[in-house]
Amino acid sequence: MLKVAIVGYGQTKFSKDDLKIESVLMRSTKNLFDSTSNLNQKDIDAVLVSTNNNSKYLSAILSEMTGIRPKISHTIESLCNSGTNSIVSAYSYIASGLAELVLISGAERYDSPGQILEWDNLRGEFKHPIFWASIFSKSYKRKYSVTDEELALVSVKNHRQSINNPNAFSQKLVSIEDVLNSKKLTDDLRILDCSRPCTGGASILLASENICKTFTDNPIWITGIGQKTTSASFTKNTTFDNMESTKQAALSAFQMSKHEPKDIDVMEVHDAFSVCEPMALDSMGFTKQGEGIEMVKEAYLTENSKINPRGGLIGSGHPLGATGISQTIEITQQLQSKAGKRQVNNAKIGLIHNMAAAATSSTVLVLEK
Amino acid sequence: MLKVAIVGYGQTKFSKDDLKIESVLMRSTKNLFDSTSNLNQKDIDAVLVSTNNNSKYLSAILSEMTGIRPKISHTIESLCNSGTNSIVSAYSYIASGLAELVLISGAERYDSPGQILEWDNLRGEFKHPIFWASIFSKSYKRKYSVTDEELALVSVKNHRQSINNPNAFSQKLVSIEDVLNSKKLTDDLRILDCSRPCTGGASILLASENICKTFTDNPIWITGIGQKTTSASFTKNTTFDNMESTKQAALSAFQMSKHEPKDIDVMEVHDAFSVCEPMALDSMGFTKQGEGIEMVKEAYLTENSKINPRGGLIGSGHPLGATGISQTIEITQQLQSKAGKRQVNNAKIGLIHNMAAAATSSTVLVLEK
Repeated sequence: MLKVAIVGYGQTKFSKDDLKIESVLMRSTKNLFDSTSNLNQKDIDAVLVSTNNNSKYLSAILSEMTGIRPKISHTIESLCNSGTNSIVSAYSYIASGLAELVLISGAERYDSPGQILEWDNLRGEFKHPIFWASIFSKSYKRKYSVTDEELALVSVKNHRQSINNPNAFSQKLVSIEDVLNSKKLTDDLRILDCSRPCTGGASILLASENICKTFTDNPIWITGIGQKTTSASFTKNTTFDNMESTKQAALSAFQMSKHEPKDIDVMEVHDAFSVCEPMALDSMGFTKQGEGIEMVKEAYLTENSKINPRGGLIGSGHPLGATGISQTIEITQQLQSKAGKRQVNNAKIGLIHNMAAAATSSTVLVLEK
Repeated sequence: MLKVAIVGYGQTKFSKDDLKIESVLMRSTKNLFDSTSNLNQKDIDAVLVSTNNNSKYLSAILSEMTGIRPKISHTIESLCNSGTNSIVSAYSYIASGLAELVLISGAERYDSPGQILEWDNLRGEFKHPIFWASIFSKSYKRKYSVTDEELALVSVKNHRQSINNPNAFSQKLVSIEDVLNSKKLTDDLRILDCSRPCTGGASILLASENICKTFTDNPIWITGIGQKTTSASFTKNTTFDNMESTKQAALSAFQMSKHEPKDIDVMEVHDAFSVCEPMALDSMGFTKQGEGIEMVKEAYLTENSKINPRGGLIGSGHPLGATGISQTIEITQQLQSKAGKRQVNNAKIGLIHNMAAAATSSTVLVLEK
C-alpha cells in the first residue's frame, strides 16, 4: 500500500463576501498553485470539490478554469463533514494506485443550503443547528455540572487564537463577559457560542510517497483515518452529552496510526458551538467523560494553543465544505513548523476532528511529520 | 492490492412517479437486501449516494433508514457520470483496505436539477442537453455521411431491447418511421432520439476478494477503470464528432484490464441521444472513426443485443444518478448469466461507458466473470 502525504495547500480569507462558488474554488486553488513548487496541471490525476452548494459539475468546472484534465472528478457532500470525506477519498485513490496526485478544493458561500437541516422532519420546526447545540449544552452542563462561564472559555480562547490567523473570519478578542452578554439565541446558547456561516475556500494537494518530494521537502503523512455515521436524525442520538460517532472515529484513527491521545501535539476540533469542543475531547478519549472542559480551561489559562490553533470554527468561521480542509491545512502547517504566530512548539503528531449534524457523523484524521 | 467484486444489486422500475428521493434510495436498497444472501447491515463499511438531487446528507439518511452505521458516507455528484464515479470511489476504498463492503445507491427524480446545464454560460440560452446533442448529430452526420434513418436505428434497436427489461421506462417497440415522424425538437433531433428523464433507483454492493463469496457464488470482478474529464463547457470540445474523454477513459480501462475492444462480449453505452451510441463505439476503438453506425446497423439486423441489452438510456430511461449503476448491474447480470430474456450468449467480459455533459467527462469500466 502506497503511503499518502499532504504536499500543498491554499486558502482564501473567510468572509461574508458575496462571491460565486466558482470564484471561491478558483481563488484557493490559485493560492495552492502559487505556493507549491513544481506543480503542473497535467500531473493532477483527480480533482474533488467539497461543498454543499447546489451547483452541479463543479469539479469539471474548476478543472477547466485551472487547466487540469483529471481522470477522477466529482463533488462530495456530507454537510459539515464534506471536506474530510473528500480527503479520505483522495487518500484511497492514491493508496489503491488509481491516482498519484489529487487536488481537493472545498468551498462554501455564507448562504449555504447545508446550514438548515431541512431533511430532518423529526426536528419539527427546529431545523437550525442552534437547536441541537442548545440541547447538547443543557445536557452537558447538567450532567457534568459545567457553568455558562466555563463554556464561554471555548469562545474566548478560540477568538484569541484566531487573531493570529490571517484567514480567520473573526479578528477580535472577546471576554467571558462579552460571550455571556452576547445575544441569547436560546436558554443555553448565546451568539458568541456559535461559529458563523461564511464564504471561504480551502484547497489541499495529496500525493503518493513516490512523488511527494517533487512538491515539498516537508510532506505530512496521513497515518490514521477513522469515520463513523451513527444516524442522520438528531433524535436517534442515544445521548446528548457525548458524541458516539466521534468516539468510534477516533478509535479507528488511533488504531490505524498506532497512536493514542497522549501522543497528539496539536489538534483541530469541530467547535461549531462552544459545547462541542469539550464534548469532542471527552469522546476522543483525551479526557474522561465530562472533563474536557478542564482541558479547555487549562489551555486557556496557560495560553497553550494546541486545541484549535487557527481559532477553530468559532474564531475562523465555518464555510461548511471548506472547514475540514482548512482544519487539515492548519495541522499540516503546524507539523511543518510553518504556522507563524500560531506555531505550537515541537508539534510532530496532529489530529483533525470534523463532524456533521449534531455529531451524527464524524471523521478523525491523524497526521505525522 | 485487494481485488474488488460486485456481489449484489437491486433496482426500481424507472417511471415518472412523483416519489421523494429518500423513497427511491430506499426501494432499490431494499431490493438489494432482499436478493443478496447473508447480507447484514453491520458488515457494510461505506454507503455512497449517487444523485444530482439538492437534498443534503442523503447517505446518512439512507443509512439510518436501512439500519446501517457505516464508516464512510457521502453523496457523489458529477451530473450523468455520478454513478460510475461512485463505483470508482467504492473500488478504491476496498482496494486500499479502508473498507471491505460498500453499498452504493443511485437515485434521481424526473425533475432532477442535473438536467439543465445552468452553469455553462457559454451555452447562452441553449442550456438543455438537446442543443449539444443536436450539434453532435449534425456534425457526425455531415462528417461521416450518416443519414437520419441510420441514426434512428439506435432508438429502434434500444427500444426493442428494453421490451425485455422489466425496469425500463419504455415498454414499446418503435419503428424507423416512428422515430423520423416523432416530434422534431431541433433540425437534427427528434424526441424518439432522446433518452427520457425519469424517476429511478439502482443500488449495488461491492466487496473485497476476502469476503465476496459470503454473498454470491458468482462475483463479478472490476478489472478495468478509466476516467477522464476534458472540460466542463461544451465549447471547449475540440471536435463535435467524437468523444475525447471517452477515448481516454477507454484507453485507460483497456490498459488496466489487459483487454482490447475485440474481447468485449457485452456492453452498456451512454446513449443519452441516438448519435452518442455510434460516437462512443468509434471513440472507444470498437470501430474506426465514423463506422460505429455500421456496428449499430449490424446489431439491429442480426438482432444481436450485445450493445445496450437493457435498452440503453433511450429504452430504459435516464435517472441521472442511477444510470451508471443500472448500466453496471446490467453487465453484472449478463456475466452471471442472469439476464433472462436479455441474455447475451457466452458473455464473459463486459464494458460500461458512462459520461456527462456532451462527453466532457467519461468513465469506462471493464468487468469480468
